[in-house]
Amino acid sequence: MKKELVIVKIGGNIIDDNVALKKFISIVSKTKSPMILVHGGGKLATELSGTLGIKTKMISGRRVTDERTLNVAVMVYAGLINKSIVALLNGKGRPSIGLCGADHLCMISQKRNPKPIDFGFVGDVKEVDNKFIASLIKKGITPVIAPITSTKTGQLLNTNADTIASSLAVALSGLYSIRLIYCLEKNGVLQNEKVITSINVESYKILVEKGIVKDGMIPKLDNAFEAIKQGVQQVNIGHALQLNKIIHGKSGTVISK
Amino acid sequence: MKKELVIVKIGGNIIDDNVALKKFISIVSKTKSPMILVHGGGKLATELSGTLGIKTKMISGRRVTDERTLNVAVMVYAGLINKSIVALLNGKGRPSIGLCGADHLCMISQKRNPKPIDFGFVGDVKEVDNKFIASLIKKGITPVIAPITSTKTGQLLNTNADTIASSLAVALSGLYSIRLIYCLEKNGVLQNEKVITSINVESYKILVEKGIVKDGMIPKLDNAFEAIKQGVQQVNIGHALQLNKIIHGKSGTVISK
Repeated sequence: MKKELVIVKIGGNIIDDNVALKKFISIVSKTKSPMILVHGGGKLATELSGTLGIKTKMISGRRVTDERTLNVAVMVYAGLINKSIVALLNGKGRPSIGLCGADHLCMISQKRNPKPIDFGFVGDVKEVDNKFIASLIKKGITPVIAPITSTKTGQLLNTNADTIASSLAVALSGLYSIRLIYCLEKNGVLQNEKVITSINVESYKILVEKGIVKDGMIPKLDNAFEAIKQGVQQVNIGHALQLNKIIHGKSGTVISK
Repeated sequence: MKKELVIVKIGGNIIDDNVALKKFISIVSKTKSPMILVHGGGKLATELSGTLGIKTKMISGRRVTDERTLNVAVMVYAGLINKSIVALLNGKGRPSIGLCGADHLCMISQKRNPKPIDFGFVGDVKEVDNKFIASLIKKGITPVIAPITSTKTGQLLNTNADTIASSLAVALSGLYSIRLIYCLEKNGVLQNEKVITSINVESYKILVEKGIVKDGMIPKLDNAFEAIKQGVQQVNIGHALQLNKIIHGKSGTVISK
């Protein structure tokens, strides 16, 4: 039987809240399962770009990453946020190292096709070095992964943290029994403010049709179903501070075939 | 016989010059010796602090690192500079990963005593996890190290890159025959614009007395002699773009007992 590996993705709601982040780190440090932590960006990059006078260019509701925006993303995501989490985790006695896709080229990406829309320095993950990641996990190390990847020739690229988490989950599903957990500021996918405990392909369609699942939740769930389709054992969606309960099946939404 | 390990420290002159940096990376990628690359900061952090309106506080000619200055240092050193170098190195086919002292707590530091002068979030290296670093080198990985360390409890600290390089050299000297190379914008320690090919403890004293070695070169050479005293095989000082020649004993200044 394959050993379990938990891949947790956290977003801005935890990263931007210092007290919540410390609570979350404390929960992670007490969790026994081998784990990979993927973090998103939070407000800091946007704030820093603003202070530096970098204007955010949007096309079809999505941000364009020019060179200066990329530099800010690398600084904030792979620098300040990544190393702060790593320092806190190690400080709590859970050995961890911070990585982005450029490290050991562990996540090689391709710059997104500039046609029809040029989103700039944005990359889609093409290859994950699962052996390198697994070699760290075998040593009891928790990799903390920033949403920055690199092309084979060394161009850093901004990359969506949700898809980094699902790409890692799929790439490692041959070696481990994966539980992929997307953490939100809510207790799961909600309907009338109550958590939907389980969603499958069929019920997902209905939830989208009824407008219960909408906006940013759609790409997140699409990622989740895609991961399951490609061999990931289980995907959960829930609140970061309920991580322990989610792992024990006592909180959040379970995504299944 | 111990295997050779080259530890190279580069500073702002290379980091701030994109063309020179790429040339340097190209030289490193062709070098066969196992290597650790330690980088300093360069102008970027100072520029960014300036743009963000963070006033540089100096005491006795040394910069005080307040919390905002520390955040900028972590972003720029452990983020942008570190990952850019790593991406370039991997892009050139030399497997590398970027680390700071917080990663796997590989360099634990202590906040400098606030008395008599409080330099803020500045740390002195107390412990190097040489086994962790050696485990990477054994896998053919080149660690690229940013001048940020962490206390045992997870406080990130700004740390001098020269002393990081010498601390690593000393800590690894039990496992490897170390050649520590400090790269400058000059071809070595100069006297009347000519490279002094060799300096020992005796001649160093005279060079300082005569004012030939002065200013920033003094702590660098003090670091070098201290490293040699503590078991480092050889220290060289030379120009980054002459790295290959320095390794082959054909350029730079050799520091010896």
